Amino acid sequence: MSDLTLCLIDRPTAPPGESVSIVDADPLQATVLATDFGVNRGDGIFEVAGCVDGRVHALDAHLRRFARSASMLDLPKPNSDAYAEAVRRAIAPLCAQRPGQEVLVKFVLTRGQEMGGTGGPAGWAIAYPCPDFAHDRSGIDVVTLDRGVRSDIMRTTPWLLGGAKTLSYAANKAALREAKRRGADDVLFVSTDGHALEGPSSSLIARINGVLVTPHPDEGVLAGTTQADVFAYAEEVGFRTETRPVLTDELAAADALWLTSSGRLCAPVKSLDGRPMAVDAALTAEWNDHLLARS
Amino acid sequence: MSDLTLCLIDRPTAPPGESVSIVDADPLQATVLATDFGVNRGDGIFEVAGCVDGRVHALDAHLRRFARSASMLDLPKPNSDAYAEAVRRAIAPLCAQRPGQEVLVKFVLTRGQEMGGTGGPAGWAIAYPCPDFAHDRSGIDVVTLDRGVRSDIMRTTPWLLGGAKTLSYAANKAALREAKRRGADDVLFVSTDGHALEGPSSSLIARINGVLVTPHPDEGVLAGTTQADVFAYAEEVGFRTETRPVLTDELAAADALWLTSSGRLCAPVKSLDGRPMAVDAALTAEWNDHLLARS
Repeated sequence: MSDLTLCLIDRPTAPPGESVSIVDADPLQATVLATDFGVNRGDGIFEVAGCVDGRVHALDAHLRRFARSASMLDLPKPNSDAYAEAVRRAIAPLCAQRPGQEVLVKFVLTRGQEMGGTGGPAGWAIAYPCPDFAHDRSGIDVVTLDRGVRSDIMRTTPWLLGGAKTLSYAANKAALREAKRRGADDVLFVSTDGHALEGPSSSLIARINGVLVTPHPDEGVLAGTTQADVFAYAEEVGFRTETRPVLTDELAAADALWLTSSGRLCAPVKSLDGRPMAVDAALTAEWNDHLLARS
Repeated sequence: MSDLTLCLIDRPTAPPGESVSIVDADPLQATVLATDFGVNRGDGIFEVAGCVDGRVHALDAHLRRFARSASMLDLPKPNSDAYAEAVRRAIAPLCAQRPGQEVLVKFVLTRGQEMGGTGGPAGWAIAYPCPDFAHDRSGIDVVTLDRGVRSDIMRTTPWLLGGAKTLSYAANKAALREAKRRGADDVLFVSTDGHALEGPSSSLIARINGVLVTPHPDEGVLAGTTQADVFAYAEEVGFRTETRPVLTDELAAADALWLTSSGRLCAPVKSLDGRPMAVDAALTAEWNDHLLARS
């Protein structure tokens, strides 16, 4: 049995209430046309959510962000009900095989076909076993890399699609390769005007003078679903939180840093550009336990 | 009969000399896996070349640039012989159907599979009828849009992949939608430090005091195959040419501007940001006739 399960959505942007077929497909067989805008132009959007025992973490938040990304790309609105059903169907067999274990599910919408190809937008959900992130959750070495843009791109240059989760991730992948070349595990992007932004596939949380801080989505960073759930939980247990510009100069003085994402959850930063950072293992474990228990 | 022809390359990065199968495929049937890095991350490269009567314009230049893009993305080297054969096979039926008419061929290489999917990089060539570019070749309205980056990104931030022809074109497509919203046909990207760069899928040629000028590839622009062939031809007939930084301030004083690309060839700019520009229709036609006659 394959470790992947794939569900195709036949009309992923059908208006709410219209009937949409969701079809199981073999992930080892091709399902995307060579004319699809997704593969030709990285022109589409995606989300990745974590799951345990059939519970999809923060699915509504992922669906809302998916719809927001669609809007930023002038794509038709994805049918949230159909995506929710496809997600649940895709994860069911994997979660059943792996009680208590983490499973990831990715869902995608493309713009449709170009070059005269026929057929509309493609949509699917694909579930796969979560990689072992034990190393990352104990601490990662991070390098800062210039993203090459200012922190005000959402206002000045919205066509750069800052803050949208698009399929155009080639530069994010290139940045990760640069980090590996520098002997690090991951990247923290910084703006040309000295703001800490986010990782290639993660949000930044900094604890500065005991306050949890994350960069504001207005600065062209993705609004993190995991970061949001950490902040909600942390506030409940008494932390102060702030969503505001974070200057790179503040990072050296931070008590602790984390990169957060749906698959890896909270990964504490154990060094930044080679300078050791304190890791709060107990707090990290508390947050990750909370995140894994989400319904 | 479909207007598209598709040839799949089974081992697109096989070392030179190894045997590679090229298989005809139905472009209306899916050929890309849902796990492919191309569709998931825009993580791959492409080229588009024009053809008439089985002659592929500048194929060697496209194959060289394809290999350069692969190197910039740390991809294995594409097998140029296999791509050349796939291109010729893909265009043959369309060119035979359309004597004397323009056909385009796109070829693609992806990084392979993620999420535990099996199978290597995907490679193919797809041929399709050239859209009618008569309007564009008579003159286009262009707006300048900030690309949000400096002109020195190749040196400072190579992980942005400036100058590589990647599948991550979502922002380029968004910029074109912004141009349409502004009532224009196309975009000229400018850097934050005031350099004219390129279009979302074209190179800039400016005639300034009678000299043909194009921005230097060191500034994070794609080295244009069509622009190069225009310059080679123009030099033969007595033009001086320069490849150097072009300041946006110089554009207002330019005698004429063109955006050049493999499909549309030379499109003269008839207005820039709403200011009318002189169109040299005779010179444009001479260049396009030359480009169409290339072997």
